[in-house]
Amino acid sequence: MLPEPFLCMKRVFNFSAGPAALPDEVLRTAAEEMLDWHGSGMGVMEMSHRGPEFISICDQAFSDLRELLAVPADYDILFLQGGGIGENAIVPMNLIGRLAEQGRQPAADYVVSGSWSVKSFKEARKYGDIRVVASNETEGFTAFPDPAGWKLNDDSAYVHVCTNETIHGIECHVPPEVGQKDGRVLVADVSSHILSRPMNISRFGAVYGGAQKNIGPAGVTIVIVRKDLLGHALPITPSAFDWKIVSEFGSMYNTPPTYAIYVAGLAFQWIKRQGGLAAIEQRNVAKAKLLYDFIDGSDFYLNNVEKGSRSRMNIPFFLADESRNKDFLGGAKARGMVQLKGHKSVGGMRASIYNAMPLEGVQALVDYMREFERKS
Amino acid sequence: MLPEPFLCMKRVFNFSAGPAALPDEVLRTAAEEMLDWHGSGMGVMEMSHRGPEFISICDQAFSDLRELLAVPADYDILFLQGGGIGENAIVPMNLIGRLAEQGRQPAADYVVSGSWSVKSFKEARKYGDIRVVASNETEGFTAFPDPAGWKLNDDSAYVHVCTNETIHGIECHVPPEVGQKDGRVLVADVSSHILSRPMNISRFGAVYGGAQKNIGPAGVTIVIVRKDLLGHALPITPSAFDWKIVSEFGSMYNTPPTYAIYVAGLAFQWIKRQGGLAAIEQRNVAKAKLLYDFIDGSDFYLNNVEKGSRSRMNIPFFLADESRNKDFLGGAKARGMVQLKGHKSVGGMRASIYNAMPLEGVQALVDYMREFERKS
Repeated sequence: MLPEPFLCMKRVFNFSAGPAALPDEVLRTAAEEMLDWHGSGMGVMEMSHRGPEFISICDQAFSDLRELLAVPADYDILFLQGGGIGENAIVPMNLIGRLAEQGRQPAADYVVSGSWSVKSFKEARKYGDIRVVASNETEGFTAFPDPAGWKLNDDSAYVHVCTNETIHGIECHVPPEVGQKDGRVLVADVSSHILSRPMNISRFGAVYGGAQKNIGPAGVTIVIVRKDLLGHALPITPSAFDWKIVSEFGSMYNTPPTYAIYVAGLAFQWIKRQGGLAAIEQRNVAKAKLLYDFIDGSDFYLNNVEKGSRSRMNIPFFLADESRNKDFLGGAKARGMVQLKGHKSVGGMRASIYNAMPLEGVQALVDYMREFERKS
Repeated sequence: MLPEPFLCMKRVFNFSAGPAALPDEVLRTAAEEMLDWHGSGMGVMEMSHRGPEFISICDQAFSDLRELLAVPADYDILFLQGGGIGENAIVPMNLIGRLAEQGRQPAADYVVSGSWSVKSFKEARKYGDIRVVASNETEGFTAFPDPAGWKLNDDSAYVHVCTNETIHGIECHVPPEVGQKDGRVLVADVSSHILSRPMNISRFGAVYGGAQKNIGPAGVTIVIVRKDLLGHALPITPSAFDWKIVSEFGSMYNTPPTYAIYVAGLAFQWIKRQGGLAAIEQRNVAKAKLLYDFIDGSDFYLNNVEKGSRSRMNIPFFLADESRNKDFLGGAKARGMVQLKGHKSVGGMRASIYNAMPLEGVQALVDYMREFERKS
């Protein structure tokens, strides 16, 4: 039982895009166990990653994540470091050389749908022949590029997409088939919507993401990869980021980010207590609908993403009169709603409403938006 | 003020080699601030790394670390991910191409003094011409190789050493000059003794280490590098691990491991409250002397490292009768002393007595060792 002082702390509604809000229950457990995990006399941070205590924590996290996402048996789950931006290099290092055994050049196709996929594309060019096969950049990133228009290349090891663009608020709601020609697979950066909804992992060769948006603390990166794709890393791949080595060592080739894995594990258990991903998805649909419906019903606020591509997680919006932005943010903060400022490349506001944001938080935001509009 | 239940928790003496014990004060502060950092209504894990709250935490950590180690102004401090094993690749990626502008081949010299430097050497071979210039492997790693015997090469970008070998218990107490011929610099893996003693950073081109041994939680890697060495990374270096990019972005090119940095920062402040590194060193010398003197005065226990190379941090020891190992460990655990089992490659016992281990913990171990010997 948590000591009384924790129960009366004033908590804000935190709309940060990441690192982002965590469920109170997760943080309370972490605080309670900080100096003594389950009577061991040690905190989780202090445990050898080779000891039975941490191994039990890590095994549980693997197992809960596999259960939540219904990860098929022919896929491995890896815990790494370096975040999504690290993976922008690590993904091609691991996957682009796969066809070299057939005497083919390292090549991959990239779909550009916002700032994050632009970054992925630029970084991957260090490691092979990287082609943009679809882009909505000239339209200002207001929709996920329609797969019917993708110009895929036959010689690609993989097709890369970002299935939720945190900055532009664009979500790919139905991951496409990419033909599997010559073993070509779909690879996705799922950083900002993993565990927000069920996901058909078998549609992908690999998915990856930093944990700090919809799961837990920054510092642990999750990779889920089909096992037959392992073992073809480029020779210049650091061992710590060679997925096959990481897999063989159960994500303990190097010391893993133990505390971040522990907190992510607490978040997995919290999701299970909420009813799993089907229940979480219903909550997230309801939260997003509440905010989008309000924005669409107002001339005062604007979201310019096409309806079929709107993210459930990150909702950028603008005031028709942008000179009021500062007033809006100040009033929100005074009411205990923080980190609503839009990304600097886009401006305006952004409400990130990940799993840990309760419906009450979105309702409080909508109530405030209505009040702000009325008073303007 | 910490709630009462935290104050009566049973804590063990934790001799883990890493992740390792943290000071109670550090963990208590972390627990107290878990749901609400300084009245912000957010925990540190939940803060955007771009927000003023986390930036103030990170700036303080940089500044305290610079002060503690008296890092000269022409050196940068970087917070990365991937640990020492990640750096085994990242170091050559960043430093080995430096002489290419003079039309020379990527080459570096490695000193082999134990398991960790063997790993560093093997990984670096992916990136250039890597030569072992000194090794005590045939002697069973019982001393740090005497610099007088190093066969350095004139064409090396750097000479790599591990200044504390965690597994074999070998410490390099006086980092050597390496001549600076053609810009050659000394580079050190200092993972397991950084902040245990003052260190003359200007003796090195770069030092690096994972935090999880003598500082804080696993998941943050510290690099201290002379600024003129930046900007020569091999083209295949991932941007997230290109030290120049990391430096330009104040260690926020990608989302940093925010919570690990925060806890490391709490540890830096704890060291300052102890009186800084000069005071910490005195404590560490006294702790190591207590244990080594006891071992040397007994025929029952054995440490086979040459006295001038003995580590103050990691003290492996063996029972003359190894069939008693399990009894020894069981008795220690029953007395609240844990994680004393030696590394599997070496066997026996190992007491890691980093900064957070109080003298009382070492005294308790020595008392138990005396009792165990007497009863045997």
